[in-house]
Amino acid sequence: MSTLKDVRLYDIHELKEENGNLSFLGMPFSAKRIFCVYGVRPGFIRGWHAHKLCKQFLIALSGSVTVTCDDGENRKTFTLSSPKEGLYIPPMIWGEQFYHSKEVITVGLADKHFDEMDYIRDYEAFKESKCV
Amino acid sequence: MSTLKDVRLYDIHELKEENGNLSFLGMPFSAKRIFCVYGVRPGFIRGWHAHKLCKQFLIALSGSVTVTCDDGENRKTFTLSSPKEGLYIPPMIWGEQFYHSKEVITVGLADKHFDEMDYIRDYEAFKESKCV
Repeated sequence: MSTLKDVRLYDIHELKEENGNLSFLGMPFSAKRIFCVYGVRPGFIRGWHAHKLCKQFLIALSGSVTVTCDDGENRKTFTLSSPKEGLYIPPMIWGEQFYHSKEVITVGLADKHFDEMDYIRDYEAFKESKCV
Repeated sequence: MSTLKDVRLYDIHELKEENGNLSFLGMPFSAKRIFCVYGVRPGFIRGWHAHKLCKQFLIALSGSVTVTCDDGENRKTFTLSSPKEGLYIPPMIWGEQFYHSKEVITVGLADKHFDEMDYIRDYEAFKESKCV
């Protein structure tokens, strides 16, 4: 069962070129789904769920977002504010994302197609499932 | 061998929620690599290459970028300007991307890890390889 030790912040290599900047990374998994979040009212928190099996990878391409990860026993926060870093979140980690400004754009990748059955949206149910 | 008919613009489903907007899509391939382009001087063109085997998917998350695709016989342009659309570019399609403003942020996904040998960076060589 995943713990906070399995959550990992990746440095993404950046190439500064005369005609712009390119950041690139070999993914820690093969991504089957992409999602983008934008236009969030500053101060709003999104997420509030864990995945049973799905792995996720998050990058803040504009602005900054603070991601709180919770393994049922401990919490840890990561502030993403650059295309030069990405956060790998394994399954069975509860996640909440705090958006600092309206300009925040995050892109997320997941290793599974959407399946509502894979979501745990109740924190107490999440904690209980971590004790099994 | 790919032609322009194989280049495909995808509508990405958008969910407008009280706490922000979410767009999401099941990828047309499993992505092993992500790259982000930003800070491009307006009017600059990037790309100038084709891939021998690698598939790509592009989204403009901020600003707008005009992508020219060329199959060696014909050219077609697509203007990406929203997280609600993404462009699938198959292998053996020459690509050039025109950045309209400094605010443009594009995210790209590829089905293969980086391999310089997969790139064709000379247009004449690309045209010749299409005639084989």
